[in-house]
Amino acid sequence: MTCSVELLCIGNELLVGKTTNTNATWLAKKITVLGGSVKRVTTVGDYVNEIQEATEAALVRRPDFLITTGGLGPTFDDTTIAGVSKAVKLRLRINKEALTQIRARYRRIFHSKRFILSKFRLKMAAFPTGARPLSNPVGTAPAMVLQSGKTTIIALPGVPKELRAIFSEHVAPLIRDKAGTGAYVSRTIQVTRVFESELAPLIDRVMKQQPEVYVKSHPQGGEGRGTSLIRLDFSYIGHDPRKGHEVVSEAIVHMRRLLAVRVRQSARKR
Amino acid sequence: MTCSVELLCIGNELLVGKTTNTNATWLAKKITVLGGSVKRVTTVGDYVNEIQEATEAALVRRPDFLITTGGLGPTFDDTTIAGVSKAVKLRLRINKEALTQIRARYRRIFHSKRFILSKFRLKMAAFPTGARPLSNPVGTAPAMVLQSGKTTIIALPGVPKELRAIFSEHVAPLIRDKAGTGAYVSRTIQVTRVFESELAPLIDRVMKQQPEVYVKSHPQGGEGRGTSLIRLDFSYIGHDPRKGHEVVSEAIVHMRRLLAVRVRQSARKR
Repeated sequence: MTCSVELLCIGNELLVGKTTNTNATWLAKKITVLGGSVKRVTTVGDYVNEIQEATEAALVRRPDFLITTGGLGPTFDDTTIAGVSKAVKLRLRINKEALTQIRARYRRIFHSKRFILSKFRLKMAAFPTGARPLSNPVGTAPAMVLQSGKTTIIALPGVPKELRAIFSEHVAPLIRDKAGTGAYVSRTIQVTRVFESELAPLIDRVMKQQPEVYVKSHPQGGEGRGTSLIRLDFSYIGHDPRKGHEVVSEAIVHMRRLLAVRVRQSARKR
Repeated sequence: MTCSVELLCIGNELLVGKTTNTNATWLAKKITVLGGSVKRVTTVGDYVNEIQEATEAALVRRPDFLITTGGLGPTFDDTTIAGVSKAVKLRLRINKEALTQIRARYRRIFHSKRFILSKFRLKMAAFPTGARPLSNPVGTAPAMVLQSGKTTIIALPGVPKELRAIFSEHVAPLIRDKAGTGAYVSRTIQVTRVFESELAPLIDRVMKQQPEVYVKSHPQGGEGRGTSLIRLDFSYIGHDPRKGHEVVSEAIVHMRRLLAVRVRQSARKR
């Protein structure tokens, strides 16, 4: 089984370079380890029409999951739910379960039943028809889950602590179920004294012999230095973790052998 | 004048959470300071069809610049130029200027005219018709610039040191020219003892009085802690830096005044 995922990250702070999108990195790593496969990450600003357009485009590609991050809070520019609703053509209504969660949260915060449920607080309970809230153990705004055709849309808050708590509690089990027995094995070696253009044919040979292993080179200092350093990632995405470890190990042994030959050769000719 | 930019970041390592997309952060910050406006960041894997599809979709939105990152090297999965070429329906040919740059590079590396121009090295000179190379002062693969309708497509390497050098030397001047007298002013204050849901109406009031200032709240600890901490960003994007500083300062003064009133009130009622 495969489990395809798209991320839609929402926030002007990501587009002006104020914030680095570490939510995307964290989610991508978790999803990969759970056996899912992130196909695309899209980042847009806090605008209803942008969110709507990006959601519509993602739904056309029919991923199993579309996970949004950010834009769930009480302020005017928290527009994720409005954008998603427009994309799926569903009206926003106050979700009773979400409202209950929000009330309970403020009751705990203020140690009292007396607090004002302002329109700003009420906004966090406005979900499209058919959506369910996912309780937020760390913050106030509940996350949202909504089925749209083949795709499960999940809207997570942008505050990393909240995003991580809700993902681990509610979303990870859904992805694990869908991915089935997914296995991801990855190992990295460092290579020196070889240029990336010399590695390219070796990578081709290793991957021809081990087609299940994906080999990717990451030059750390740019080709062209006497002390060139290249990170070589070997990864397996499949269903059998034991086999994954086996083929990744074999590919690394193969690469090391080719590299040894190469180094001897390159002493003579470039 | 405005100058809209889209980023298309290419690399499987970004989609499995192995690498954080700091190239996007760096570029977004630089572009914003130069007066440009990043509208969207898309990240896809090292697949020709994905790159093609994302490029086509970006061109439909007609940004002034589409900047790609990654996938320019000599290995089999460096497929950016192939994907972009398909999107703009142009054939790949060996670009003479790019080839000259690559030859010169290897000549310097090997301190000799004797080196093999393997198909892997030659690949880095294959550009669509009409494209121009941008010399890479740090690595081997030249960057590429190509006009497609209204949009200037620029393909940068993914190695941060190379990307930054090429951007600063070749791309920043193009964006500055296009953006004209763009000005970006941004200031941040920290707010405590107030919940984001209480801030929401204050933000509305400040932005109503200073419509040129964009105010965004970033909860640092999740709403709901006695020691809640919220980062409040005030930013101006326009054409007059002096006016930008002025209106941002005024907005901050206004916010501080509203917050002082709020703190006194909230001692009495929530």
